[in-house]
Amino acid sequence: MSQFLERPLEVLPRINAPSDVAALTQEELTLLAEDLREVIISTVSHNGGHLAPSLGVVELTLAMLSVFDPASDKFVWDVGHQAYAYKLLTGRKDAFHTLRTLGGVSGFPRMAESPFDHFGTGHSSTSISAASGLAMARDLLGQKHKVLAVIGDGSMTAGLAYEGLNQAGGDDRDLVVVLNDNKMSISKNVGALSLFLSRKLSNRWIVRAKREFESVARHLPYGQEMVEIVKRGEESFKGFFTPGMLFEAFHFNYLGPIDGHDLPKLTAIFKEVREMSGPVLVHVLTQKGRGYSPAERNPTYYHGVGSFEPETGEIIKLSASKLPSYTDVFGHTLCSLAEKDQRIVAITAAMPEGTGLSRFAQLYPERFVDVGICEQHAVTFAAGLATQGLKPVVAIYSTFLQRSYDQIVHDVCLQNLPVTLCLDRGGLVGEDGATHHGVFDLSYLRHIPNLVLMAPKDEAELQRMLATAMKHEGPVAIRYLRGVGVGSAREGEPAVLPIGEGELLRDGKDAVIVAIGSRVLPALQAAIELEAEEGLSVAVYNARFVKPLPADDLIALAGRFKTMLTVEESALQGGFGSSVLECLADAGSLSGLKVKRLGIPDHFVEHGPQKILREMLGIAKGGIKAATLELARS
Amino acid sequence: MSQFLERPLEVLPRINAPSDVAALTQEELTLLAEDLREVIISTVSHNGGHLAPSLGVVELTLAMLSVFDPASDKFVWDVGHQAYAYKLLTGRKDAFHTLRTLGGVSGFPRMAESPFDHFGTGHSSTSISAASGLAMARDLLGQKHKVLAVIGDGSMTAGLAYEGLNQAGGDDRDLVVVLNDNKMSISKNVGALSLFLSRKLSNRWIVRAKREFESVARHLPYGQEMVEIVKRGEESFKGFFTPGMLFEAFHFNYLGPIDGHDLPKLTAIFKEVREMSGPVLVHVLTQKGRGYSPAERNPTYYHGVGSFEPETGEIIKLSASKLPSYTDVFGHTLCSLAEKDQRIVAITAAMPEGTGLSRFAQLYPERFVDVGICEQHAVTFAAGLATQGLKPVVAIYSTFLQRSYDQIVHDVCLQNLPVTLCLDRGGLVGEDGATHHGVFDLSYLRHIPNLVLMAPKDEAELQRMLATAMKHEGPVAIRYLRGVGVGSAREGEPAVLPIGEGELLRDGKDAVIVAIGSRVLPALQAAIELEAEEGLSVAVYNARFVKPLPADDLIALAGRFKTMLTVEESALQGGFGSSVLECLADAGSLSGLKVKRLGIPDHFVEHGPQKILREMLGIAKGGIKAATLELARS
Repeated sequence: MSQFLERPLEVLPRINAPSDVAALTQEELTLLAEDLREVIISTVSHNGGHLAPSLGVVELTLAMLSVFDPASDKFVWDVGHQAYAYKLLTGRKDAFHTLRTLGGVSGFPRMAESPFDHFGTGHSSTSISAASGLAMARDLLGQKHKVLAVIGDGSMTAGLAYEGLNQAGGDDRDLVVVLNDNKMSISKNVGALSLFLSRKLSNRWIVRAKREFESVARHLPYGQEMVEIVKRGEESFKGFFTPGMLFEAFHFNYLGPIDGHDLPKLTAIFKEVREMSGPVLVHVLTQKGRGYSPAERNPTYYHGVGSFEPETGEIIKLSASKLPSYTDVFGHTLCSLAEKDQRIVAITAAMPEGTGLSRFAQLYPERFVDVGICEQHAVTFAAGLATQGLKPVVAIYSTFLQRSYDQIVHDVCLQNLPVTLCLDRGGLVGEDGATHHGVFDLSYLRHIPNLVLMAPKDEAELQRMLATAMKHEGPVAIRYLRGVGVGSAREGEPAVLPIGEGELLRDGKDAVIVAIGSRVLPALQAAIELEAEEGLSVAVYNARFVKPLPADDLIALAGRFKTMLTVEESALQGGFGSSVLECLADAGSLSGLKVKRLGIPDHFVEHGPQKILREMLGIAKGGIKAATLELARS
Repeated sequence: MSQFLERPLEVLPRINAPSDVAALTQEELTLLAEDLREVIISTVSHNGGHLAPSLGVVELTLAMLSVFDPASDKFVWDVGHQAYAYKLLTGRKDAFHTLRTLGGVSGFPRMAESPFDHFGTGHSSTSISAASGLAMARDLLGQKHKVLAVIGDGSMTAGLAYEGLNQAGGDDRDLVVVLNDNKMSISKNVGALSLFLSRKLSNRWIVRAKREFESVARHLPYGQEMVEIVKRGEESFKGFFTPGMLFEAFHFNYLGPIDGHDLPKLTAIFKEVREMSGPVLVHVLTQKGRGYSPAERNPTYYHGVGSFEPETGEIIKLSASKLPSYTDVFGHTLCSLAEKDQRIVAITAAMPEGTGLSRFAQLYPERFVDVGICEQHAVTFAAGLATQGLKPVVAIYSTFLQRSYDQIVHDVCLQNLPVTLCLDRGGLVGEDGATHHGVFDLSYLRHIPNLVLMAPKDEAELQRMLATAMKHEGPVAIRYLRGVGVGSAREGEPAVLPIGEGELLRDGKDAVIVAIGSRVLPALQAAIELEAEEGLSVAVYNARFVKPLPADDLIALAGRFKTMLTVEESALQGGFGSSVLECLADAGSLSGLKVKRLGIPDHFVEHGPQKILREMLGIAKGGIKAATLELARS
């Protein structure tokens, strides 16, 4: 459990199996809710994590576990960052202090971690689809348990959730979908659905419904009276159209909305649900950050947070660094570029803060769009904008842009449209782990024709790459790191780079390192140290472009050296080093050259500090030095 | 225009610009509709193509072009296979006889083909997103035209369409979405939405609505009478809940449903729509295949069709081949395997016929699921099934599986679940062109950890790979060709292959060809002919596995030969040959070896016959021979 508790726990120590929850009184459940919040706040204040989402569903988790049978019923947590209470109640309370640390409890449900994690998650909106699979399997295997998916209103904006609803409703199997409605995505939720859930009914609907009602009523006895009544009682009439209608349109049985912090009510409704069959949607209203006032006041900040002082919520700066992050540099540079170029439009998928676009949104609200959690739509929408001469910039984390692969191929690159994809969190992200590392992007992007694909070595190069993208008349992708750089960002007008040109940062005689993005400066440092320590003369080349590769330079380097090391913070399979091999093989430049590639090997990388993960994978300075030395002396 | 007309055209010859349509009388429009059908049927009967979808929207196309201004208003056709009439009316009637032929008119809208194609399509459900982009661009640029998206009810099952609706409804910009509701996807439409559109209202909805109505009414004067009326008049009550409600929930103004073949009514409604602002959805009911009785009777068969006899609809077999297609072999083999293994479940995304699963659906209806056009959901749903010990097989065309990239990474491979992905139409597909070629699959799949990725050289190997997948306890992808093979399929129990083992089909001295999938047998034939014609002794190796590669064999071959040619029907960038380079580089086996890679170069490939495209790209037998000869003699 947590080592950082403010008060002694009262009930949680007695929970040894998830089924113990069902035996508790309402009073004990209330105390247990306090215990859970205490442990979650204290642990996250130390380790960082998804605080506000997990605090919001404490009562919901307790109610579900007390009514359903955790030994047989199956829970699928959408995204999964809200599952901390569930983890504490299902066998992980003693390990919970290791949350998000290397080798410790994951921040997301993982089947490998616990038999109570019935589906691993991390990206949004998969829960209804996965739970539909669990439900069909149950029926085919002649089993009888319940299957529950818990999904936020933010996750409901992604099309995948709708695809799941559409099948589940059509299939009519037993399935419970709990809509955890906190009116938030990571930021404020957007789109028509969020208006609807909050009963901001479209006037059009009301107008048409009244009109149709009148036309039906007119032909009935007392019809005119009914019409008059409806006209007078607009509020009653509005109440008639609840969010339930939408879900009932999908053939779900709708219950709600229910106060998600009222344990007795929640328990009662789940007991009712337990006896129902077919697809059921339970609409629960929760407050993100509930029970911790700093998080209640600023649920966006405390959505995913680093260490903080638990009593005050004050942020603990782990380093004295005042350097801006790549995200900040991106955001500020885009604002400067947009000031001079009215064609620039910025698009985010539910992450204005995370992708650094908050300032852009304030400065240029008419040119900013938050589409919600729907990366597919974000990219196709941007393609539509680009057909009309605008310069859309789509800022999405590398791992989430995986959702848009087909749209990048078809809607952007096949049509050769000037859409700029900015992949934040490219590379290892650290504590969020396997579902969030942005390590496949170079591999899933570089084979797409027409795309220019770059990765900056530092913040100043990110600025230049953005300026380059804004001048280029075709699709561009730029991928950059999570975290701070070296402080190289500059004001003024960043220079436009020649497409497909890299730079020789340091010449040498014994070996050459060809690096991309975040690995360029560690490679340079490695070369400097190798010279000082080992007397090895190592050239370092910054490729800048994964596509088009600086082929002439690479071929020339292959001719001058006997050994070449490629380094990237991305998957080795089909990645940057792989493209260098292709280039040199095509040019017939491989014979007589020994090439070694450093990068992410062919397995999923777990959670842990970025720095340590890089060291473990041999792509930090030390690994680069060792590999260069071995290569040069082999 | 078409060279194969049954009767002379009356009005179409006078249409020289799209704006000419607006000047026609209703009588002329009716004649023009006949002309369009005549040209479409005769051209498609000769060239093959998407007949039924295009016949269904002839009147809709005419009504839109006669009411809106094609010089400024912008039309986005979802998927785009229904746009033949639009193409004929917007400058392409003289070239229309080249439909889908090499260098001819594309079967889909393409911006490069015409200024009237405002967004290129091919994959479903992009139109609302793209049109939202066009609408925002219009507003930012201070323009005034209308933007229209035409989307089928089948395309509405994909989440991307819903993401588009959600933003468009929330944004409230001027946008017209025309819902072309023919109650069909390619096959019969599925899911809750399709039930809803056809007013098969959920009983739950009616029950709840009545209950809520009663509780409201009871407190009103005449309330009890109203309740009684509602009880008696269930049909009127049902009529009150139209499909409009769903779209009005998304803040769209709903009009319809309207008979999509009634030109005067359509024209009238579009005139009304033209004067409206904000998001408008026009619900049009059409008949797929309208006006051609064979297609009306069997719209699924005539959805996309080869050559046929226009008078009778009889299919013209272009070759005397009675060989089954890879699709057929897949379908039959899966049925045999499923007979013995109750865990096998088959999933298709709206393509039971196209993917060869019709027989499976008949034999094992309880283990067959058509999820509709939602490839993302198909994969996550399969992952859910696999968690419970089932063996889901997801059959989706290679190009459409691009939509599921993130789900393959996260839901299947990260969790290491035994889901088998069967990628039909892997490689060049021919006349459907750039949006449908399955040429990126090896590149977008091979970097995903835990995945076993195979491609069969012939039908018998496809059978063995399927059997292998059913025995493997992890994720598998098998990609195979569109079209027939060599007749090698066998009955009985296909042998299980050792994972990661290829086969040396022919030994040699002068060079080795390492081939995968569809290129293995042409490579073998090339080697045989090179020996006979040039006296060259060429070994041929069938890798079978792209992942895990048969590394030991490849390294041994690299040690024995000075030249190696890799051949694949997939993108060279990050593809199979690229993985061979990686393998040999990692083993230090590249020095002294010259490797040349044949495959799809780094550009999008246009439409045309598969055979000719392969020849043009140098991956047919002739190209393999020439490349081997050049390599061996260099």
